[in-house]
Amino acid sequence: MQPWNFIVIRDRGVRAAVRDAFVQERVRAAALYEEPRRSQFLTLKLEGILDAPVNLCVTCDPTRGGLHVLGRSAIPETDVYSTCCAVQNFWLAARAEGIGVGWVSIVQPEQLKRILGIPAPVIAVAYLCVGFVSDFSDTPDLERAGWRRRLSLADLVFEDQWGRPETRLGTAFAARGEDR
Amino acid sequence: MQPWNFIVIRDRGVRAAVRDAFVQERVRAAALYEEPRRSQFLTLKLEGILDAPVNLCVTCDPTRGGLHVLGRSAIPETDVYSTCCAVQNFWLAARAEGIGVGWVSIVQPEQLKRILGIPAPVIAVAYLCVGFVSDFSDTPDLERAGWRRRLSLADLVFEDQWGRPETRLGTAFAARGEDR
Repeated sequence: MQPWNFIVIRDRGVRAAVRDAFVQERVRAAALYEEPRRSQFLTLKLEGILDAPVNLCVTCDPTRGGLHVLGRSAIPETDVYSTCCAVQNFWLAARAEGIGVGWVSIVQPEQLKRILGIPAPVIAVAYLCVGFVSDFSDTPDLERAGWRRRLSLADLVFEDQWGRPETRLGTAFAARGEDR
Repeated sequence: MQPWNFIVIRDRGVRAAVRDAFVQERVRAAALYEEPRRSQFLTLKLEGILDAPVNLCVTCDPTRGGLHVLGRSAIPETDVYSTCCAVQNFWLAARAEGIGVGWVSIVQPEQLKRILGIPAPVIAVAYLCVGFVSDFSDTPDLERAGWRRRLSLADLVFEDQWGRPETRLGTAFAARGEDR
Protein backbone atom coordinates (compact mmCIF):
# COMPACT_ATOMS: atom_id res chain seq x y z
CA MET A 1 0.00 0.00 0.00
CA GLN A 2 2.88 2.39 0.75
CA PRO A 3 0.54 4.75 2.63
CA TRP A 4 3.42 6.89 3.83
CA ASN A 5 4.92 10.25 2.95
CA PHE A 6 8.13 11.66 4.36
CA ILE A 7 8.38 15.40 4.95
CA VAL A 8 12.03 16.37 5.33
CA ILE A 9 12.18 19.50 7.46
CA ARG A 10 15.32 21.63 7.39
CA ASP A 11 13.74 25.09 7.58
CA ARG A 12 14.45 26.63 10.97
CA GLY A 13 11.19 28.58 11.10
CA VAL A 14 9.15 25.42 10.60
CA ARG A 15 11.19 23.60 13.24
CA ALA A 16 10.79 26.50 15.67
CA ALA A 17 7.00 26.31 15.25
CA VAL A 18 7.09 22.57 15.99
CA ARG A 19 9.33 23.25 19.01
CA ASP A 20 6.72 25.72 20.31
CA ALA A 21 4.02 23.07 19.90
CA PHE A 22 6.22 20.64 21.84
CA VAL A 23 6.74 23.14 24.68
CA GLN A 24 2.98 23.73 24.95
CA GLU A 25 2.23 20.03 25.11
CA ARG A 26 5.05 19.41 27.57
CA VAL A 27 3.43 21.90 29.97
CA ARG A 28 0.10 20.12 29.58
CA ALA A 29 1.71 16.70 30.05
CA ALA A 30 3.69 17.79 33.13
CA ALA A 31 0.46 18.83 34.84
CA LEU A 32 -0.70 15.19 34.66
CA TYR A 33 2.02 14.11 37.11
CA GLU A 34 2.29 14.66 40.86
CA GLU A 35 5.51 15.92 42.43
CA PRO A 36 8.31 14.86 42.45
CA ARG A 37 7.51 13.18 39.12
CA ARG A 38 6.39 16.48 37.59
CA SER A 39 9.72 18.24 38.20
CA GLN A 40 11.65 15.20 37.01
CA PHE A 41 9.58 15.07 33.82
CA LEU A 42 10.54 18.66 33.03
CA THR A 43 14.27 17.84 33.34
CA LEU A 44 14.16 14.97 30.82
CA LYS A 45 15.65 15.45 27.35
CA LEU A 46 12.66 14.64 25.15
CA GLU A 47 13.40 16.37 21.86
CA GLY A 48 16.16 17.72 19.65
CA ILE A 49 13.99 19.65 17.21
CA LEU A 50 16.31 22.64 16.83
CA ASP A 51 19.55 20.83 17.72
CA ALA A 52 19.18 18.22 14.96
CA PRO A 53 19.85 19.54 11.44
CA VAL A 54 17.03 17.47 9.95
CA ASN A 55 13.57 16.62 11.20
CA LEU A 56 11.31 14.13 9.48
CA CYS A 57 7.54 13.82 9.66
CA VAL A 58 6.22 10.44 8.53
CA THR A 59 2.56 10.41 7.61
CA CYS A 60 -0.08 7.83 6.66
CA ASP A 61 -2.73 8.42 4.01
CA PRO A 62 -5.64 6.02 4.70
CA THR A 63 -7.25 6.91 1.35
CA ARG A 64 -4.36 5.73 -0.81
CA GLY A 65 -4.78 2.72 -3.07
CA GLY A 66 -8.54 2.82 -3.50
CA LEU A 67 -11.41 1.42 -1.51
CA HIS A 68 -10.26 -2.18 -1.08
CA VAL A 69 -6.59 -2.51 -0.30
CA LEU A 70 -5.39 -6.09 0.01
CA GLY A 71 -4.86 -6.96 3.67
CA ARG A 72 -7.05 -4.18 5.05
CA SER A 73 -10.48 -5.84 4.86
CA ALA A 74 -10.39 -7.11 8.46
CA ILE A 75 -7.88 -4.65 9.94
CA PRO A 76 -8.07 -1.20 8.33
CA GLU A 77 -5.35 0.00 10.73
CA THR A 78 -2.72 -1.95 8.78
CA ASP A 79 -1.99 1.29 6.92
CA VAL A 80 -0.73 2.84 10.15
CA TYR A 81 1.06 -0.43 11.03
CA SER A 82 2.90 -0.31 7.69
CA THR A 83 3.87 3.30 8.31
CA CYS A 84 5.33 2.43 11.71
CA CYS A 85 7.35 -0.38 10.13
CA ALA A 86 8.72 2.18 7.65
CA VAL A 87 9.67 4.44 10.57
CA GLN A 88 11.52 1.60 12.26
CA ASN A 89 13.32 0.73 9.00
CA PHE A 90 14.46 4.33 8.76
CA TRP A 91 15.47 4.38 12.42
CA LEU A 92 17.63 1.27 12.16
CA ALA A 93 19.14 2.32 8.83
CA ALA A 94 20.13 5.65 10.37
CA ARG A 95 21.56 3.93 13.44
CA ALA A 96 23.61 1.63 11.20
CA GLU A 97 25.16 4.79 9.71
CA GLY A 98 25.92 6.20 13.17
CA ILE A 99 23.05 8.69 13.01
CA GLY A 100 20.74 9.18 15.96
CA VAL A 101 16.96 9.36 15.69
CA GLY A 102 14.55 10.55 18.36
CA TRP A 103 10.77 10.21 18.10
CA VAL A 104 8.92 13.26 19.46
CA SER A 105 5.36 12.31 20.37
CA ILE A 106 4.75 15.18 22.81
CA VAL A 107 3.03 17.37 20.18
CA GLN A 108 -0.66 17.68 19.39
CA PRO A 109 -1.02 16.03 15.96
CA GLU A 110 -3.58 18.59 14.72
CA GLN A 111 -1.16 21.40 15.55
CA LEU A 112 1.66 19.57 13.76
CA LYS A 113 -0.59 19.08 10.73
CA ARG A 114 -1.40 22.79 10.59
CA ILE A 115 2.30 23.73 10.73
CA LEU A 116 3.21 21.30 7.93
CA GLY A 117 0.08 21.78 5.79
CA ILE A 118 -0.91 18.12 6.04
CA PRO A 119 -4.39 17.44 4.54
CA ALA A 120 -7.26 16.44 6.83
CA PRO A 121 -7.49 12.68 6.14
CA VAL A 122 -3.73 12.14 6.47
CA ILE A 123 -2.36 11.00 9.85
CA ALA A 124 0.87 12.54 11.18
CA VAL A 125 2.26 9.32 12.65
CA ALA A 126 5.83 10.18 13.60
CA TYR A 127 7.92 13.29 14.12
CA LEU A 128 11.61 12.42 14.15
CA CYS A 129 14.75 14.40 15.03
CA VAL A 130 17.68 13.15 12.98
CA GLY A 131 21.30 13.97 13.62
CA PHE A 132 24.72 12.99 14.87
CA VAL A 133 24.85 12.27 18.59
CA SER A 134 27.76 12.22 21.02
CA ASP A 135 27.20 8.58 21.99
CA PHE A 136 24.74 5.70 21.94
CA SER A 137 23.82 4.19 25.29
CA ASP A 138 22.92 0.52 25.73
CA THR A 139 20.45 1.56 28.41
CA PRO A 140 17.34 3.48 27.32
CA ASP A 141 17.45 7.11 28.49
CA LEU A 142 14.30 6.82 30.59
CA GLU A 143 15.71 3.76 32.37
CA ARG A 144 18.99 5.58 33.03
CA ALA A 145 17.09 8.56 34.42
CA GLY A 146 15.26 6.27 36.83
CA TRP A 147 11.93 7.11 35.22
CA ARG A 148 11.04 3.57 34.38
CA ARG A 149 12.51 0.07 34.47
CA ARG A 150 12.66 -2.40 31.63
CA LEU A 151 10.17 -5.26 31.86
CA SER A 152 11.44 -8.82 31.85
CA LEU A 153 11.14 -10.32 28.38
CA ALA A 154 10.29 -13.73 29.86
CA ASP A 155 7.12 -12.22 31.38
CA LEU A 156 6.06 -10.86 28.00
CA VAL A 157 6.31 -14.08 26.01
CA PHE A 158 3.51 -16.66 26.07
CA GLU A 159 3.06 -20.07 24.47
CA ASP A 160 0.03 -20.98 22.35
CA GLN A 161 -2.37 -19.04 24.61
CA TRP A 162 -2.38 -15.68 26.36
CA GLY A 163 -0.99 -16.01 29.90
CA ARG A 164 0.70 -19.40 29.46
CA PRO A 165 4.45 -19.01 30.15
CA GLU A 166 6.78 -19.83 27.27
CA THR A 167 9.13 -22.16 29.09
CA ARG A 168 11.46 -23.00 26.21
CA LEU A 169 12.30 -19.41 25.33
CA GLY A 170 12.51 -18.47 29.02
CA THR A 171 15.41 -20.87 29.40
CA ALA A 172 17.04 -19.57 26.25
CA PHE A 173 16.77 -15.95 27.46
CA ALA A 174 18.32 -16.83 30.83
CA ALA A 175 21.18 -18.71 29.17
CA ARG A 176 21.94 -15.69 26.96
CA GLY A 177 21.66 -13.22 29.82
CA GLU A 178 18.99 -11.30 27.96
CA ASP A 179 16.38 -11.46 30.67
CA ARG A 180 17.12 -8.42 32.75
CA MET B 1 6.14 1.46 27.75
CA GLN B 2 6.79 -1.99 26.31
CA PRO B 3 3.06 -2.50 25.66
CA TRP B 4 3.67 -5.70 23.73
CA ASN B 5 3.31 -9.42 24.38
CA PHE B 6 4.49 -12.17 22.07
CA ILE B 7 2.44 -15.36 21.85
CA VAL B 8 4.56 -18.10 20.30
CA ILE B 9 2.23 -20.57 18.62
CA ARG B 10 3.48 -24.04 17.78
CA ASP B 11 0.34 -26.07 18.56
CA ARG B 12 -1.16 -27.36 15.33
CA GLY B 13 -4.73 -27.21 16.60
CA VAL B 14 -4.43 -23.54 17.47
CA ARG B 15 -2.83 -22.81 14.10
CA ALA B 16 -5.59 -24.76 12.30
CA ALA B 17 -8.21 -22.60 14.03
CA VAL B 18 -6.40 -19.44 12.91
CA ARG B 19 -6.16 -20.88 9.38
CA ASP B 20 -9.95 -21.40 9.38
CA ALA B 21 -10.42 -17.78 10.45
CA PHE B 22 -8.15 -16.73 7.59
CA VAL B 23 -10.13 -18.77 5.05
CA GLN B 24 -13.40 -17.21 6.22
CA GLU B 25 -12.04 -13.69 5.94
CA ARG B 26 -10.46 -14.43 2.56
CA VAL B 27 -13.90 -15.38 1.20
CA ARG B 28 -15.34 -12.14 2.58
CA ALA B 29 -12.44 -10.08 1.19
CA ALA B 30 -12.63 -11.73 -2.26
CA ALA B 31 -16.26 -10.69 -2.56
CA LEU B 32 -15.14 -7.04 -2.38
CA TYR B 33 -13.36 -7.33 -5.75
CA GLU B 34 -14.80 -7.50 -9.26
CA GLU B 35 -13.60 -10.14 -11.72
CA PRO B 36 -10.90 -10.75 -12.88
CA ARG B 37 -9.39 -9.27 -9.70
CA ARG B 38 -11.47 -11.60 -7.51
CA SER B 39 -10.11 -14.79 -9.08
CA GLN B 40 -6.58 -13.43 -9.02
CA PHE B 41 -6.92 -12.56 -5.34
CA LEU B 42 -7.83 -16.16 -4.55
CA THR B 43 -4.68 -17.45 -6.29
CA LEU B 44 -2.31 -15.27 -4.23
CA LYS B 45 -0.18 -16.85 -1.51
CA LEU B 46 -1.22 -14.81 1.51
CA GLU B 47 -0.40 -17.03 4.49
CA GLY B 48 1.79 -19.90 5.68
CA ILE B 49 -0.01 -20.59 8.96
CA LEU B 50 0.28 -24.37 8.81
CA ASP B 51 3.40 -24.51 6.59
CA ALA B 52 5.51 -22.46 8.99
CA PRO B 53 6.58 -24.29 12.17
CA VAL B 54 6.10 -21.21 14.34
CA ASN B 55 3.47 -18.51 14.33
CA LEU B 56 3.71 -15.39 16.46
CA CYS B 57 0.94 -13.09 17.62
CA VAL B 58 2.18 -9.68 18.76
CA THR B 59 -0.26 -7.78 20.93
CA CYS B 60 -0.53 -4.31 22.49
CA ASP B 61 -1.91 -3.65 25.97
CA PRO B 62 -3.07 -0.01 26.11
CA THR B 63 -3.57 -0.27 29.90
CA ARG B 64 0.05 -1.07 30.71
CA GLY B 65 2.16 1.41 32.65
CA GLY B 66 -0.59 3.32 34.40
CA LEU B 67 -2.77 6.25 33.42
CA HIS B 68 -0.08 8.67 32.23
CA VAL B 69 2.60 7.06 30.14
CA LEU B 70 5.33 9.44 29.02
CA GLY B 71 4.88 10.28 25.34
CA ARG B 72 1.21 9.30 25.18
CA SER B 73 -0.43 12.51 26.40
CA ALA B 74 -0.98 13.92 22.91
CA ILE B 75 -0.93 10.69 20.89
CA PRO B 76 -2.34 7.72 22.83
CA GLU B 77 -1.81 5.51 19.76
CA THR B 78 1.95 5.53 20.39
CA ASP B 79 1.44 2.21 22.21
CA VAL B 80 0.40 0.60 18.94
CA TYR B 81 3.18 2.45 17.11
CA SER B 82 5.73 0.99 19.55
CA THR B 83 4.31 -2.47 19.02
CA CYS B 84 4.65 -2.16 15.25
CA CYS B 85 8.28 -1.07 15.67
CA ALA B 86 8.84 -4.22 17.75
CA VAL B 87 7.29 -6.29 14.96
CA GLN B 88 9.62 -4.72 12.41
CA ASN B 89 12.64 -5.32 14.67
CA PHE B 90 11.64 -8.98 14.88
CA TRP B 91 11.05 -9.15 11.14
CA LEU B 92 14.47 -7.75 10.25
CA ALA B 93 16.27 -9.81 12.92
CA ALA B 94 14.66 -12.96 11.50
CA ARG B 95 15.57 -11.95 7.94
CA ALA B 96 19.18 -11.39 9.02
CA GLU B 97 19.18 -15.03 10.19
CA GLY B 98 17.76 -16.25 6.88
CA ILE B 99 14.30 -16.78 8.34
CA GLY B 100 11.21 -15.62 6.49
CA VAL B 101 8.33 -13.77 8.14
CA GLY B 102 4.88 -13.18 6.67
CA TRP B 103 2.28 -10.87 8.25
CA VAL B 104 -1.25 -12.27 7.99
CA SER B 105 -3.78 -9.46 8.33
CA ILE B 106 -6.67 -11.25 6.62
CA VAL B 107 -8.20 -12.46 9.90
CA GLN B 108 -10.90 -10.80 12.01
CA PRO B 109 -9.04 -9.61 15.13
CA GLU B 110 -11.92 -10.51 17.47
CA GLN B 111 -11.88 -14.07 16.15
CA LEU B 112 -8.10 -14.25 16.61
CA LYS B 113 -8.45 -12.96 20.16
CA ARG B 114 -11.03 -15.66 20.99
CA ILE B 115 -8.76 -18.41 19.64
CA LEU B 116 -5.75 -17.18 21.62
CA GLY B 117 -7.60 -16.14 24.80
CA ILE B 118 -6.49 -12.53 24.51
CA PRO B 119 -8.24 -10.24 27.08
CA ALA B 120 -10.71 -7.60 25.90
CA PRO B 121 -8.60 -4.42 26.18
CA VAL B 122 -5.56 -5.96 24.46
CA ILE B 123 -5.14 -5.37 20.71
CA ALA B 124 -3.99 -8.24 18.49
CA VAL B 125 -1.73 -6.15 16.26
CA ALA B 126 0.18 -8.69 14.19
CA TYR B 127 -0.09 -12.36 13.30
CA LEU B 128 3.17 -13.60 11.84
CA CYS B 129 4.17 -16.86 10.12
CA VAL B 130 7.82 -17.61 10.81
CA GLY B 131 9.90 -20.20 8.99
CA PHE B 132 12.57 -21.05 6.47
CA VAL B 133 11.71 -20.09 2.92
CA SER B 134 13.08 -21.35 -0.39
CA ASP B 135 14.25 -17.91 -1.48
CA PHE B 136 13.94 -14.18 -0.86
CA SER B 137 12.85 -12.06 -3.81
CA ASP B 138 13.99 -8.47 -4.28
CA THR B 139 10.58 -7.70 -5.74
CA PRO B 140 7.56 -7.75 -3.42
CA ASP B 141 5.27 -10.71 -4.13
CA LEU B 142 2.27 -8.54 -4.98
CA GLU B 143 4.34 -6.55 -7.46
CA ARG B 144 5.63 -9.76 -9.06
CA ALA B 145 2.07 -11.08 -9.33
CA GLY B 146 1.03 -7.91 -11.16
CA TRP B 147 -1.38 -6.99 -8.36
CA ARG B 148 0.17 -3.64 -7.65
CA ARG B 149 3.17 -1.50 -8.64
CA ARG B 150 5.64 0.16 -6.36
CA LEU B 151 5.19 3.92 -5.99
CA SER B 152 8.07 6.20 -6.81
CA LEU B 153 9.91 7.23 -3.66
CA ALA B 154 10.58 10.71 -5.10
CA ASP B 155 6.80 11.32 -5.21
CA LEU B 156 6.47 10.38 -1.54
CA VAL B 157 9.13 12.70 -0.13
CA PHE B 158 8.37 16.36 0.53
CA GLU B 159 10.44 19.29 1.80
CA ASP B 160 9.38 21.46 4.75
CA GLN B 161 5.70 21.37 3.73
CA TRP B 162 3.25 18.76 2.49
CA GLY B 163 3.21 18.68 -1.33
CA ARG B 164 6.49 20.53 -1.89
CA PRO B 165 8.88 18.29 -3.85
CA GLU B 166 12.14 17.40 -2.11
CA THR B 167 14.54 18.29 -4.91
CA ARG B 168 17.80 17.43 -3.17
CA LEU B 169 16.82 13.88 -2.28
CA GLY B 170 15.17 13.41 -5.67
CA THR B 171 18.53 13.88 -7.34
CA ALA B 172 20.19 11.57 -4.85
CA PHE B 173 17.61 8.82 -5.51
CA ALA B 174 18.05 9.12 -9.27
CA ALA B 175 21.83 8.95 -8.96
CA ARG B 176 21.58 5.78 -6.87
CA GLY B 177 18.99 4.22 -9.17
CA GLU B 178 16.58 3.84 -6.27
CA ASP B 179 13.72 5.71 -7.84
CA ARG B 180 11.89 3.02 -9.77
